[in-house]
Amino acid sequence: MSHENQAPGAVEPVLSHVDSTLDAALERLMAFLRLRSISTDPAFAADCECAADWLRDELAGMGFDAAKHPTPGHPMVLAHGPDMPGRHVMFYGHYDVQPVDPLELWHRDPFDPAIEDTPAGKVIRGRGAADDKGQLMTFVEACRAWIAVHGALPVKVSMFFEGEEESGSPSLVPWMQENTDRLRADLALICDTGMFDRETPGITTMLRGLVGQEVTITGPSKDLHSGMFGGAAMNPARVLARILADLHDDGGRVTLEGYYDDVPEIDEAIMAQWRALGFDHEEFLGAVGLKYPAGEKGRSALEMIWSRPTCEINGMISGYTGAGFKTVLPSKASAKVSFRLVGRQDPAKVAAAFQAHVRARLPGDCKVEFTDHSSGPASVMATNDPAFEAARQALSDEWPRPAAFIGSGGSIPIAGYFKTILGMDSMLIGFGRDDDQIHSPNEKYDLESFHKGIRSWVRILAALAKG
Amino acid sequence: MSHENQAPGAVEPVLSHVDSTLDAALERLMAFLRLRSISTDPAFAADCECAADWLRDELAGMGFDAAKHPTPGHPMVLAHGPDMPGRHVMFYGHYDVQPVDPLELWHRDPFDPAIEDTPAGKVIRGRGAADDKGQLMTFVEACRAWIAVHGALPVKVSMFFEGEEESGSPSLVPWMQENTDRLRADLALICDTGMFDRETPGITTMLRGLVGQEVTITGPSKDLHSGMFGGAAMNPARVLARILADLHDDGGRVTLEGYYDDVPEIDEAIMAQWRALGFDHEEFLGAVGLKYPAGEKGRSALEMIWSRPTCEINGMISGYTGAGFKTVLPSKASAKVSFRLVGRQDPAKVAAAFQAHVRARLPGDCKVEFTDHSSGPASVMATNDPAFEAARQALSDEWPRPAAFIGSGGSIPIAGYFKTILGMDSMLIGFGRDDDQIHSPNEKYDLESFHKGIRSWVRILAALAKG
Repeated sequence: MSHENQAPGAVEPVLSHVDSTLDAALERLMAFLRLRSISTDPAFAADCECAADWLRDELAGMGFDAAKHPTPGHPMVLAHGPDMPGRHVMFYGHYDVQPVDPLELWHRDPFDPAIEDTPAGKVIRGRGAADDKGQLMTFVEACRAWIAVHGALPVKVSMFFEGEEESGSPSLVPWMQENTDRLRADLALICDTGMFDRETPGITTMLRGLVGQEVTITGPSKDLHSGMFGGAAMNPARVLARILADLHDDGGRVTLEGYYDDVPEIDEAIMAQWRALGFDHEEFLGAVGLKYPAGEKGRSALEMIWSRPTCEINGMISGYTGAGFKTVLPSKASAKVSFRLVGRQDPAKVAAAFQAHVRARLPGDCKVEFTDHSSGPASVMATNDPAFEAARQALSDEWPRPAAFIGSGGSIPIAGYFKTILGMDSMLIGFGRDDDQIHSPNEKYDLESFHKGIRSWVRILAALAKG
Repeated sequence: MSHENQAPGAVEPVLSHVDSTLDAALERLMAFLRLRSISTDPAFAADCECAADWLRDELAGMGFDAAKHPTPGHPMVLAHGPDMPGRHVMFYGHYDVQPVDPLELWHRDPFDPAIEDTPAGKVIRGRGAADDKGQLMTFVEACRAWIAVHGALPVKVSMFFEGEEESGSPSLVPWMQENTDRLRADLALICDTGMFDRETPGITTMLRGLVGQEVTITGPSKDLHSGMFGGAAMNPARVLARILADLHDDGGRVTLEGYYDDVPEIDEAIMAQWRALGFDHEEFLGAVGLKYPAGEKGRSALEMIWSRPTCEINGMISGYTGAGFKTVLPSKASAKVSFRLVGRQDPAKVAAAFQAHVRARLPGDCKVEFTDHSSGPASVMATNDPAFEAARQALSDEWPRPAAFIGSGGSIPIAGYFKTILGMDSMLIGFGRDDDQIHSPNEKYDLESFHKGIRSWVRILAALAKG
């Protein structure tokens, strides 16, 4: 197929090209999936290097100005397409994958990928099929199709790939800070999220932030015998239980001083979209053995996970926790507590409010220590940028049901870094499904996700050229 | 020394005999301490057998009708002195000892005992020196002195020794139930407790009971990601924290329904004795890094540990408790909770009230499981038996300060079994000190405890013949 025969910028021939060349795209993905790019294990450092080379070569082959950049860890790959008038987008993905343990739970070699038939349709099975090799290749293949059919992309496209996303991205922020000029664009595109449901695509426009705090309360200087001291000596487990219990009121609201000051109400247009999604909280919770939304009274389950801040106990330990019983009166009790943030909640302010909450409830005989863990603000994308509505229309054209601006309960750090380091908003669009088993044995990516994912990006690139 | 020269029943010559033969008594104790009778470790089964033989032979040599009785575990030794008019006492002790790990923390071989000089006086150093070989030998040597001087004991004495006290006494209750006729007496004497302080002996007349409960709350069917589910899914750690926090009110009282119904106030005579002891709660708590009595408002620290019931969290665990942070929303949370009982509190009723407390606070989405652990009622000795006052006077004659009827925060199961199986009260008199390091490396027993302990029993036996 040659681009000279097509009307300039027409989308339909590009979509047809995607359909007719799907097998070749799949073969490329399979080659990529065979590379054992496990970033966390030094034994696979050469495989990570190899995956970076593979991406650079693919992009160079498509006419991009592509280069591999060393870091103290695994390399970055950065590629720029030709200049175009209008919007410049920066696509982000990661070429590294999770370890494959426990290997015995895989029903095939995780690095010998294959198309398998399942009752729910064909799937691409293998480590990284969904997270993130399959997803990032939907974008790469969409660009390839545009170039094949029209000889050019409809907007200026750059691509940025890291190889440490599954191991904490230690090199990412320093490298971004040193290379801001190379990374600057108008909008970041990220393909590392999921669909709202099998038929409904979503654009994630709200990501909750996170504050992680560890608190350790010490009472007696050593573990005591509860017969000898019980009743007279302060028990730090009892103190901790009360402090944790006091973190929520009876209505499920977090009690920290000023916690809701910077929490906005969602505007009515977005709420209307969310209602239209027909989110079934019974199905969502039923899948994990639950029935009732457990958050703030008067809020829907969708609000609870997308747009309301939370406080969760992620871990707690004190005293004897082995088999049987020991009548120990413990010296220490500790808990890991996290807060999911929304809107303009300030992580430092929340951490300080938590520590004040603990200190206010600490009896004279107890000492407290805090450890700060992960911390980052919520991301709220500027959906008034017409790119968001344009992309939503494009996705709605591809899938059975209209796309929605959705929230995400978790954090995607790169979106925060694009914002804080480069002042750039991110548009998160992905085609993962809840049963993809990312990070687990038998990871898969639906063939439909891959195929319609490529087609979706073809449409979105066109829409971004106009919108 | 021959008994023909002494006035019948005179105490002073027996005490003199104890003083002049102390070295021989110490040599016997050293021989006993060299036996490696660690009951919990099957590698030392033969040593336990050997310790039982040693005791049987000693008692037979003193003219007792002594026998070793096999059990499924380590043997019992039971010995009866000749019939005498008046009261029949049954002395209890245990010949087994705790393991010696960590061996590297001992400054000498734990089974090569020696007399050592310390700034606080001479001590007998070795495993079992205090718990319980040294203590039980104070009674045996007192009997030996009586027999040496007067040719007879002032009361009928039986002795009962087990070899599984440090490993949960699995054979004790079945053997007692099958041998009630051999064990019946008027009063049990137990030497396995401590002094009130260095100068003040005590007779323990109140032992708190115990209820141990383990509670496990399950929310989601598996651990969840707190980003994806946080806010909407019930967190069992949060539920558990609230349940545990609600176990006490702001005044430190336990909130279980009916918990204080069967808790008596201590009578004024005993309270007066306690006040006279001049218990220093700042010293008691200061030794473990604390300052303020943490129990019920309006109660002294001594009441809190001796005569008031408690509720303690002995252990709790949920979610991720390793290094760093994981944003897991845990599926389960569990706690081990114990109640120290006093008066006529019924363990079954307390366990039921605890389970009702938990169930009343359980959200619809959580399941709960309970495991019953140790359970036993409090022991309150019948101090109106004149034997108690007689023994108190005898102890007061031996030591610098008057003896007191005291409580003990912990449980001594044998006292409960004597009561429930044989209907027999126990008089607990011991000469241990707080710094004896029982169950720990470098266990010791003060030479003064041993010497004056023997002299104390000489006096008590005389007093029991009269009182």
